Amino acid sequence: MSSDPSLTGLSFIGFTRGRVGGRTWRAFDPAAGSELPEPFHTAHADEVDRAAELAAAAAPALAALSGKAKAAFLRALADRVAAATPALAARAMRETALPEARCQGEIGRTVGQLRLFAALVEKGEWVDARIEHADPERKPVPKPDHRSMCRPLGPVAVFCASNFPFAYSVAGGDTASAFAAGCPVVVVAHQAHPGTAEIMAGLVVSAVREVGLPEGTFSMVQGDGRDVGQRLVKHPTLSAVGFTGSRAGGRALMDLAAARPLPIPVYAEMSSVNPVVLLEGALASRGEAVASGMVGSCTLGVGQFCTQPGVLLLVRSAAAEAFIAKLASLFAAAPEGVMLTPGIRRAYAAAVAARSARKGVRVLATGPSSDRSCGAQAALLQVSASDFIADGTLHEEVFGPCSLVVVCDNLAQLHRALESMEGSLTATLHASDAELPQQQALLARLSELAGRVILNGFPTGVEVSHAIVHGGPYPSLSDGRTTSVGSNAIYRFTRLVCYQGFADAALPDELKESNPLGIARLVDGVRRV
Amino acid sequence: MSSDPSLTGLSFIGFTRGRVGGRTWRAFDPAAGSELPEPFHTAHADEVDRAAELAAAAAPALAALSGKAKAAFLRALADRVAAATPALAARAMRETALPEARCQGEIGRTVGQLRLFAALVEKGEWVDARIEHADPERKPVPKPDHRSMCRPLGPVAVFCASNFPFAYSVAGGDTASAFAAGCPVVVVAHQAHPGTAEIMAGLVVSAVREVGLPEGTFSMVQGDGRDVGQRLVKHPTLSAVGFTGSRAGGRALMDLAAARPLPIPVYAEMSSVNPVVLLEGALASRGEAVASGMVGSCTLGVGQFCTQPGVLLLVRSAAAEAFIAKLASLFAAAPEGVMLTPGIRRAYAAAVAARSARKGVRVLATGPSSDRSCGAQAALLQVSASDFIADGTLHEEVFGPCSLVVVCDNLAQLHRALESMEGSLTATLHASDAELPQQQALLARLSELAGRVILNGFPTGVEVSHAIVHGGPYPSLSDGRTTSVGSNAIYRFTRLVCYQGFADAALPDELKESNPLGIARLVDGVRRV
Repeated sequence: MSSDPSLTGLSFIGFTRGRVGGRTWRAFDPAAGSELPEPFHTAHADEVDRAAELAAAAAPALAALSGKAKAAFLRALADRVAAATPALAARAMRETALPEARCQGEIGRTVGQLRLFAALVEKGEWVDARIEHADPERKPVPKPDHRSMCRPLGPVAVFCASNFPFAYSVAGGDTASAFAAGCPVVVVAHQAHPGTAEIMAGLVVSAVREVGLPEGTFSMVQGDGRDVGQRLVKHPTLSAVGFTGSRAGGRALMDLAAARPLPIPVYAEMSSVNPVVLLEGALASRGEAVASGMVGSCTLGVGQFCTQPGVLLLVRSAAAEAFIAKLASLFAAAPEGVMLTPGIRRAYAAAVAARSARKGVRVLATGPSSDRSCGAQAALLQVSASDFIADGTLHEEVFGPCSLVVVCDNLAQLHRALESMEGSLTATLHASDAELPQQQALLARLSELAGRVILNGFPTGVEVSHAIVHGGPYPSLSDGRTTSVGSNAIYRFTRLVCYQGFADAALPDELKESNPLGIARLVDGVRRV
Repeated sequence: MSSDPSLTGLSFIGFTRGRVGGRTWRAFDPAAGSELPEPFHTAHADEVDRAAELAAAAAPALAALSGKAKAAFLRALADRVAAATPALAARAMRETALPEARCQGEIGRTVGQLRLFAALVEKGEWVDARIEHADPERKPVPKPDHRSMCRPLGPVAVFCASNFPFAYSVAGGDTASAFAAGCPVVVVAHQAHPGTAEIMAGLVVSAVREVGLPEGTFSMVQGDGRDVGQRLVKHPTLSAVGFTGSRAGGRALMDLAAARPLPIPVYAEMSSVNPVVLLEGALASRGEAVASGMVGSCTLGVGQFCTQPGVLLLVRSAAAEAFIAKLASLFAAAPEGVMLTPGIRRAYAAAVAARSARKGVRVLATGPSSDRSCGAQAALLQVSASDFIADGTLHEEVFGPCSLVVVCDNLAQLHRALESMEGSLTATLHASDAELPQQQALLARLSELAGRVILNGFPTGVEVSHAIVHGGPYPSLSDGRTTSVGSNAIYRFTRLVCYQGFADAALPDELKESNPLGIARLVDGVRRV
């Protein structure tokens, strides 16, 4: 395969490019089982520092931008990404083995995210403007005029995700929400899809230039190891970190950020088993349909979704037996998929083998296998609830198309199994209309366990909207208060600022008495437009 | 002085009391210079654990409470606190040497905080309800109905503040906002005012019982060392920590919480120098009034306020010289105050002596002194901006009535001095109407440095309102995104939860289609009531 001459393999340090001379590596085509020809160059330490310093220098100008100006930038970027869909998809298909439709769909989602945040900041209401008018007559002391709103936090480091080369990479959700908040961004590209990252970074820089934003608005560093990202997170000008990846990688960044002289927040989306509880009534009335939907959700994208349902809990019954048998037959027929990288494939195979050897675990079904590079077989395992509760390793995420059926003796034991589990992004309940009214405690428990609770549905497929929550207790998110998808994600990169005793001219537009933006505000405790 | 028979000195572990048999200590009367008679008993390790476990057991029931039920509890508590004002103030005066009017005022503020949160949760709109309706016709995939809101985070540990025996102690702002969010609270009393804490804890338990909330809703552990609080923060059931105190103490809790297997957020209000920038025009036109207001703000409460203005920055001019001379004369006349504890008094005297000996620091004035126990003299120091920028120790908070005037050669140097400083709770600018339009960059810098920017005012005196921000970049707050005062403080103890595919009956009232609470919600992206 011939080399792509448009790819230089160099980092983007503001408006300049990185240097050669450091470590190099090549991307890998998982479907072909071979390296791609272009060399990529790990950013030098001074380049990482320069990116962080440029970001700090750009921060005040970005913080002063109007919502309209931020929206214009986000839309300029969205337009470029949409127009570059064929080139982006072609490169990502090579670097990730994700099919063309998936790449195109994910690019569309990325464009949609940018436009969602553009609309949000153009309207301006998201800042939660609050006004308290002065009361000079108040006793014992006069009340001063004071007004608050959300303001940008400062430079943000964004780590690209292996499994979302667009929606959670260079111009993905973390970057879009940080830009929308008014924060400069330094992206750490993922070493598995550096060419996709390079094409996308070129689009971002082009949009920054077109709209006339400062140079430090955006940089992207390439790297084949953890040193680049760790140096960035330690840089004193950084204000926050967005990360999507492994539990070990995310926790390492959390620990690094917490140990800084000035600690900063880390929003790491790490690890989630997404429990699904299947009640007897639901299985009796529509077990086959649930099994069919479940195998789709478990194996979608070769199971490489953060919302893959990895643990299925049910109480022993005839309907449960039939459901398990049906699901096993579907897993046995699930076609082999190609995983994102050889490392992910190796880790998956090792995890399935290790789990299969744990006490009480039975392999119910494995999908067909070939000797394809990065090929991964679906696997359905089963364990009793008592063995599950006793063995913490069974509670860990297996990244790939493997799910574990946990068979409980009764509903009380199912509750105990849930109590023993860690936080997840999602938790799902399948119940019949007759069962549901009795299961409020179960729903409450599921809502403690996860940021999104799904009734009679499947966890894969995450809406990008104002009401979505893609977050949950640790370790699914480092900071379980937040979401990394949807418009609420913007608040991760903001801080509250109050202005006391200011005349209108010195206030941001959002807080001026005349309300020039026409936004809803909390005025003396009452919501007003 | 005779012992108060109503004080047992024991912890409150839910509805039972702690045991004697561990370490004991006595509170100290700083005005009298002697110990108070009653012994207090450090909580045993098993009592700390039991408090945490009771809190975890109570969490689901509290999370299921309606806003009305939470409001009823907060009001029952507010009524009790208001009715107990004389007893509370009498004990606090002995344990803190704060004057009666201050104690009464702070109790009033505490009652007001409880009522503010009661009104907030009774209305219910604070949960930020968001609804996205289903669209079964959407291509390529149907859109599911999904709805999100803020839900309680779980059990919260609250550490009492030495300098706010009511407003930031047992039933203070952290406790009120955690209760309002629906979280159980375990309070760690402050060893300097354990009797005040015991009286207040009795009121909280009485309110919990009256309203019929579960036992674990509230506990309070007594202790004379860090071991009690550290054990609590390490307990696996804890979900968050609120703290008001020293930088070293706050950072220790942050590090402890970050190192847990399951890290939890710490909201620590720690250390703030509250810079005040005084421009020439303001000093020329109203320098005497500013000096008079400033000495009041610097020495209020013996300087033991987190918003005490510790660093005053100005550019050399005739008006500045006159202002400094006036301020020095006022500091020289500022009456001696009695500090909260002998330890705080010793630390203050040592810090003023150490600072006075730093390169380039001149002592402009010290207030009159006696040999009173815990007596503290006001102190006004001066340094050049170049010496200030070069000496990081001058950037640290001195807890007490000491302020440092930083004399700059010009406005550019003043900007450099601000650039060198750490985050604060407040930043203040005094400027004339003629100066202000040219100082947008200065205002922007101040808003990066602090959570509240004050124009032509003084930083002490913090409103309790919807728009207040009592927070700022590290080290003023551990988490500079938030506020520890005002209704926004509730969001520190919440997490987002999304319900997908739920029928109305299974949804919280805030998200039901019929909007039974009549609250404003974001419905399909549009704010509606």
